[in-house]
Amino acid sequence: MKIQGWAAHGAKRKLEPFSYDAGLLGPEEVEIAVEFCGLCHSDISILNNDWGLSRYPVIPGHEAVGQVVAAGDHVKGLQVGQRVGVGWNADSCMHCHECMTGNNNLCLEAAPTIVGHHGGFADRIRAHWLWAIPLPDALDISSAGPLLCGGVTAFAPLITFGVKPTDRVGVVGIGGLGHLALQFANAWGCEVTAFTSNPSKADEARKFGAHRIVSSRDSAEILQAANSLDFLLITVNISLDWASLLKTLKPNGRMHVVGAVLEPMSIPAFDLIMGQKSVSGSPTGGPATISTMLDFAARHNIAPQVEHFPLSKVNGAIEHLAAGKARYRVVLDVA
Amino acid sequence: MKIQGWAAHGAKRKLEPFSYDAGLLGPEEVEIAVEFCGLCHSDISILNNDWGLSRYPVIPGHEAVGQVVAAGDHVKGLQVGQRVGVGWNADSCMHCHECMTGNNNLCLEAAPTIVGHHGGFADRIRAHWLWAIPLPDALDISSAGPLLCGGVTAFAPLITFGVKPTDRVGVVGIGGLGHLALQFANAWGCEVTAFTSNPSKADEARKFGAHRIVSSRDSAEILQAANSLDFLLITVNISLDWASLLKTLKPNGRMHVVGAVLEPMSIPAFDLIMGQKSVSGSPTGGPATISTMLDFAARHNIAPQVEHFPLSKVNGAIEHLAAGKARYRVVLDVA
Repeated sequence: MKIQGWAAHGAKRKLEPFSYDAGLLGPEEVEIAVEFCGLCHSDISILNNDWGLSRYPVIPGHEAVGQVVAAGDHVKGLQVGQRVGVGWNADSCMHCHECMTGNNNLCLEAAPTIVGHHGGFADRIRAHWLWAIPLPDALDISSAGPLLCGGVTAFAPLITFGVKPTDRVGVVGIGGLGHLALQFANAWGCEVTAFTSNPSKADEARKFGAHRIVSSRDSAEILQAANSLDFLLITVNISLDWASLLKTLKPNGRMHVVGAVLEPMSIPAFDLIMGQKSVSGSPTGGPATISTMLDFAARHNIAPQVEHFPLSKVNGAIEHLAAGKARYRVVLDVA
Repeated sequence: MKIQGWAAHGAKRKLEPFSYDAGLLGPEEVEIAVEFCGLCHSDISILNNDWGLSRYPVIPGHEAVGQVVAAGDHVKGLQVGQRVGVGWNADSCMHCHECMTGNNNLCLEAAPTIVGHHGGFADRIRAHWLWAIPLPDALDISSAGPLLCGGVTAFAPLITFGVKPTDRVGVVGIGGLGHLALQFANAWGCEVTAFTSNPSKADEARKFGAHRIVSSRDSAEILQAANSLDFLLITVNISLDWASLLKTLKPNGRMHVVGAVLEPMSIPAFDLIMGQKSVSGSPTGGPATISTMLDFAARHNIAPQVEHFPLSKVNGAIEHLAAGKARYRVVLDVA
């Protein structure tokens, strides 16, 4: 039986209906009947080949949720009929140091779901069993998809870098990632500052959990927040006034990027040295982190604010997101 | 009684004999009869006003060792006659969060020994008792001075950022800081790679503890070390090929700068994100870290390799260091 989806056949081309033969199911793979699939900015980056690693035809979609419909002989911990989610990665080597320590998302051979593998804008998707993460029953599956990539990308730094509930956390960019980061940081117990270039988002940022709003376009306003933050999460992928943003950190603070800005960041060494500050980045999260995040989201009623499009309108959905109009995350109804 | 030292009266001027009246000894201060004082690159930076914060006249010298000759009424834990060392800082506020947590070196009001305060190129120096660190008896005091600033600057990152004996550590620059970093990292149990622009230093780098030598001028050779290091310490203060150096890190690796390069560092966000890497910096260390470092150095026979100059030849010593000729650290004989 062929898998039916929507694919682009080259950079910056529209998606078209596309079917492919996925072959025999691998012994460690599951096949999932997709119900919903989030649309993420990195789907657009791969469609446009912004990162030079796209392999066409591309079926995007790496925030897929659905039910397991088939499981290979060596699949562990999953049953047919179980509801799972698949995020940025669909496989990893399982035997390197990173995989052995649960950091499978850092495996140098991790297989992105939409690079050399077909994603969730399709009736079925496949993944290694470890990367098909069981969904807590309490989560609303119609909005759970964006947690699998956007959600864990915003959440993982809190756990990976030891952010404490007593910390003061800033979030730059109130979009698909940022509106989730505000919710996670607030539920984490932190004082939360939202940095946004769009003053019209201030009320919504407060609703998502921000205690304070700072204009990210105004270096003087940024500097008024000097020496106030333990952790600053950068969720946008454009060049910012990194030197001023670094000054918002207290000693020992960390500025952490999850938005893949293409131009190199200009970082003053002196500011790093004097305040013992760090600048870092991270990609999504490993299976254990995704599972922890889903549990935490269910417990705290954390969910993306989503707009739904039918899969047949996927090109319109992509235009909507690319135009910066999504409030705040797009989900395609697949089933 | 006036304190007799050597001071510069403006940027890039020679040192001249200079005496000053230090006034009454503060209740929390000690006065130390200086026996030896290291000459550090940051003495030259302050003499030249490279960082824009110099206050003339400057008596340099922030690696002073000697005996306590007077102690204020509220001094704790020190006795007259005890041998101590004073490093980059001579005081801090004692009541901010950083001071309360032992990170006094990150106190925003920490008082550098040679900025607005007179340093150790003099017969006496004063410091708050917390910043006058007792020296283990086993240390050779004629070479201990450079441990107080250079030593703790190279050592503190290992303890602050949780470097493990199982880690692979790189050190860029085999100079005043680097030759100490190699010794500390080797004694820490790590596999140690020295990156140097000067092939003639390879044998000495091995003597100091390097297991492997890489040319820091050859990007292709740097890239052969890709994905091999957990921690990379940058001890030089010149711009390097940061993007290639970042690639030498394994996932979760950290590139840490202690050399205050003046031009901003150009850091590719994508490399930080994909490998969950950090770039950071740190300034010297707090009193507890200095004390721990001195104990560790004494236990492992770690000492700077020094060249001695009499204090009367201080201008020649500065020229020697500024010309890059020091092997590897200069100590002025003061007493």
